Amino acid sequence: MLDKFFHNKVLAFRNLAVNMYNQDYLLTWEKSLNEINATILLADIFKELHKNGISLKTFETGLGISIFRDKSTRTRFSFVFACDALGLDVVSLDEEKSQVSHGETVRETAVMISFLSEVIGIRDDMYIGAGDSYMREVGQAVQKSYDKGVLAQRPSVINLQSDIDHPTQSLSDLSKLVDYFGSSENLKGKKLAMTWAYSPSYGKPLSVPQGIIALMTRFGMDVTLAYPEGYELMPEVVRQAEIFSKESTGSFRITHSLENACKEADVVYPKSWAPFEIMKQRTELLKKKDVKALDKLEQECLQQNSRFMNWECNKNLMELTRNGNALYMHCLPADISGVSCKQGEVTEKVFEKYKKDLYHQASYKPFVIAAMIFLTRMKDPLVTLEKLIRKNTSRILS
Amino acid sequence: MLDKFFHNKVLAFRNLAVNMYNQDYLLTWEKSLNEINATILLADIFKELHKNGISLKTFETGLGISIFRDKSTRTRFSFVFACDALGLDVVSLDEEKSQVSHGETVRETAVMISFLSEVIGIRDDMYIGAGDSYMREVGQAVQKSYDKGVLAQRPSVINLQSDIDHPTQSLSDLSKLVDYFGSSENLKGKKLAMTWAYSPSYGKPLSVPQGIIALMTRFGMDVTLAYPEGYELMPEVVRQAEIFSKESTGSFRITHSLENACKEADVVYPKSWAPFEIMKQRTELLKKKDVKALDKLEQECLQQNSRFMNWECNKNLMELTRNGNALYMHCLPADISGVSCKQGEVTEKVFEKYKKDLYHQASYKPFVIAAMIFLTRMKDPLVTLEKLIRKNTSRILS
Amino acid sequence: MLDKFFHNKVLAFRNLAVNMYNQDYLLTWEKSLNEINATILLADIFKELHKNGISLKTFETGLGISIFRDKSTRTRFSFVFACDALGLDVVSLDEEKSQVSHGETVRETAVMISFLSEVIGIRDDMYIGAGDSYMREVGQAVQKSYDKGVLAQRPSVINLQSDIDHPTQSLSDLSKLVDYFGSSENLKGKKLAMTWAYSPSYGKPLSVPQGIIALMTRFGMDVTLAYPEGYELMPEVVRQAEIFSKESTGSFRITHSLENACKEADVVYPKSWAPFEIMKQRTELLKKKDVKALDKLEQECLQQNSRFMNWECNKNLMELTRNGNALYMHCLPADISGVSCKQGEVTEKVFEKYKKDLYHQASYKPFVIAAMIFLTRMKDPLVTLEKLIRKNTSRILS
Repeated sequence: MLDKFFHNKVLAFRNLAVNMYNQDYLLTWEKSLNEINATILLADIFKELHKNGISLKTFETGLGISIFRDKSTRTRFSFVFACDALGLDVVSLDEEKSQVSHGETVRETAVMISFLSEVIGIRDDMYIGAGDSYMREVGQAVQKSYDKGVLAQRPSVINLQSDIDHPTQSLSDLSKLVDYFGSSENLKGKKLAMTWAYSPSYGKPLSVPQGIIALMTRFGMDVTLAYPEGYELMPEVVRQAEIFSKESTGSFRITHSLENACKEADVVYPKSWAPFEIMKQRTELLKKKDVKALDKLEQECLQQNSRFMNWECNKNLMELTRNGNALYMHCLPADISGVSCKQGEVTEKVFEKYKKDLYHQASYKPFVIAAMIFLTRMKDPLVTLEKLIRKNTSRILS
Repeated sequence: MLDKFFHNKVLAFRNLAVNMYNQDYLLTWEKSLNEINATILLADIFKELHKNGISLKTFETGLGISIFRDKSTRTRFSFVFACDALGLDVVSLDEEKSQVSHGETVRETAVMISFLSEVIGIRDDMYIGAGDSYMREVGQAVQKSYDKGVLAQRPSVINLQSDIDHPTQSLSDLSKLVDYFGSSENLKGKKLAMTWAYSPSYGKPLSVPQGIIALMTRFGMDVTLAYPEGYELMPEVVRQAEIFSKESTGSFRITHSLENACKEADVVYPKSWAPFEIMKQRTELLKKKDVKALDKLEQECLQQNSRFMNWECNKNLMELTRNGNALYMHCLPADISGVSCKQGEVTEKVFEKYKKDLYHQASYKPFVIAAMIFLTRMKDPLVTLEKLIRKNTSRILS
Repeated sequence: MLDKFFHNKVLAFRNLAVNMYNQDYLLTWEKSLNEINATILLADIFKELHKNGISLKTFETGLGISIFRDKSTRTRFSFVFACDALGLDVVSLDEEKSQVSHGETVRETAVMISFLSEVIGIRDDMYIGAGDSYMREVGQAVQKSYDKGVLAQRPSVINLQSDIDHPTQSLSDLSKLVDYFGSSENLKGKKLAMTWAYSPSYGKPLSVPQGIIALMTRFGMDVTLAYPEGYELMPEVVRQAEIFSKESTGSFRITHSLENACKEADVVYPKSWAPFEIMKQRTELLKKKDVKALDKLEQECLQQNSRFMNWECNKNLMELTRNGNALYMHCLPADISGVSCKQGEVTEKVFEKYKKDLYHQASYKPFVIAAMIFLTRMKDPLVTLEKLIRKNTSRILS
């Protein structure tokens, strides 16, 4: 039974015929649809192997490096889980302890931490125009040193959330949707509402909503992006979503009505974010270290937010969805009204109803990251995958 | 010779017939006597295997999570040693870096750090009423998610020191006593003085003395608890010690005379702790963040302490013990008069005489923790233990 | 082809017939020339094995402890790489989180972190008279506990930079030189200029220049040490370099002219350091915690430095070297004029020209550290090395 499961999955994997060896994994829209499908398929295989007590160990030794320039629990642990499961030890580059700054130094440090590394996972989502470009700088530095023979292997850079995209999140979300609807084909025509929601906080990154609209539009979903005027996303990502929706014969539209977006939706994803324009101003002020102006901007932003406290995912909103029973999604942690804050993104009742689904959604992330590492580090991922399954090593001596 | 050693130990382990799979290890008094005996027996087997260069590796991959809400060197390293020896990587949840607070968030985070974890080791000993309940909250959260199929395995929560008990310490101490007196049967009737001692510090947890009186009374020891009036322990733990002493036909008594307690003692364990009442007040003030009142309380407590500077373990006191030669124990680090402080728990002379014993006592902790993990994570610990011994893998390639 | 490479290297290793089991690795000048040669030879073998995808895993389980009392990226990661490659997990003793101070406490902590440890890597380079003696204290403590049977194995202490020497750096540099000139025999007669260089920073350790002059003089090189008057190194290390240069029939001289030192040099190593006398004063003031005097000293030192801004490695200087083409070396990070500072140790042009060489120089460090661990931890390093090569385990499942 299990054999058959893996046999079919491996066959599907073979048919995708992807080769991502020595690449980075920064934006989902830079990857082909086959590469995206291979990632979530492999994540699914890994999840099932782990559930069945079979070791995913692929590396005898080797290191994963994590660089977190913003707080993280879920993604940080998911990266450690993924590395550990594949046999890699994780060491974190703590930039306060080490001699790191910008430009030349970034490139030099990138090489110095790569002599025996297989992967560099980076979260850098605070400043518009900074995170993604930092990741590319690191990727280019290790590529150059690998080409020159200074590095014996070329670690892949994995985006653990940038200013632009959050692929480990969006691919976990995609995995959940595929499981929920039965197959990726079944996503076609399903209505997804990616909506802004009120939160009493400030400066939340744009990468989650951007990641969602630019990924789910590739699967023929009817994606609606909803936000109050002023909470625009980056225009180039919105354009990308439009292009994808046409290619996949799905649809993509923007509305400023939460209710309108959620009506007859199969999936709702209500999540707070900061307006792109304010994030840009914030980045400029941070560069100038203008603390006073930053404080003022924060106040303005919070005040602006407070005009939209009715953008909450509650019972009434959920009743508008398909059969009053849409799947509620969130990347966690959510701002839950009356629990983690006075008034937030979602009511306790709605959140509690979907808690198992939310945890299930989160449970894909370690395996998505493991798949990203595996695909970018194996010369022939199919051969290694088949060996792994054939070896069938028990993870626990028993 | 070695074979025979392990043969007999494994036989004894089989006879204890314990099954602690998927349980937490929080308070020794929640565990049966067989479970306690299985823990120290397994620790002993592990220690001997390690000494003989045999690998204890039981997990191909997997993680141990450590959460330290108070300083630690000994226990922190012991936890890492234990995990590493069994094949687990350790990652620490640093609550300042991650998005953790209380209530709902604790439960959510507990699940998020558990997707591929085998064990969660927690030290939380600062606030009365907080540490043990936090550990239970974590345990319940992972149990619930395991029951619902969100987690593929159920990590055990191991108490690395709570407000109530310090089982990794007390079981190491028990291991030392069993070794010192030759067998656990030989503990019967031995006099142990668990005594308060002066220290120029404030707010030391109650968990060590509580752990000692509630564990050693189960082995028929004559346990005396001695402290200056006002330095009471938690009443429910004292009651537990009384019950155990009756069950084991040992004895338990409280005295306010250090000399009286140590007279003809076979073992002395002089150790400073804060009065329960002050710890309770402190917890309340901490919750209110009343810094001024906290400062005042600290001053009062230190002043109260200073009235009992004569509660020191010195040559004169040791001469009162059985043949002037009782075993001196401490969980380390000790406040040594004239070394780590002006006037403390023990004189340099006494401490130096017993240094080898103290280090030996401490050397059990990594193996006690490994035994706790093994017992709570193996479906059939006997089968896995026998495999481990039969495999006889050298820890070092040689 | 590969077989032959390893065959010859292993043969050379056998002929060196070294036994460093259970020793520390603190100062290169305490090691015999055979031990030095065995270290860089083994590092070379490890580097080649790694390049060929062969696992260096020697330990099934076990820990490396790192203690960093000063910032580090390169050496910290190199230590982690080395431990991971050999199969050891690294745990860092963070002295702010744990209960560590001085004297008795150092010795106690050393034992407590050693119950299952194989190696303790220490960086402690800030105070004259402190780093090396701290390392010895740790080494003596673990030796004592090993002798008494408290520790089942005796971890080696590895100097990751002390106040006196920086052996992991100097041996990496030696490895680079041997590769650059084709053999260690070819180093004979080559001119190396270890020179001071201007930097707008203060308090840089003496251990790099000291390590270089005391190591390269053992290989018959013509070593010139150049610095402005007042920037003397420790007299005993200078004496050691003089002795070695005589033994190896090389030469050693001191000059106060940068140009003079670099004329016809085959290798230049321009690097800033603080004057020994100022470092000594600084240490005294730090002990007294005299912040005011420390600030004043820093100002004086920076002012003194600024008189020597012309001590820069630039095009004109490089033109004086042999064929205008000497090898430029640096331990990194360098203070690059116009890049990492306004005016520094080296111009961007010179630095860029040698970047590949500098990274290549740095790439030896992980393998040098791995060799140090292997040599001090294997009872019979030759036997284990031969097994490792014969096993020929692929590092990645493929």
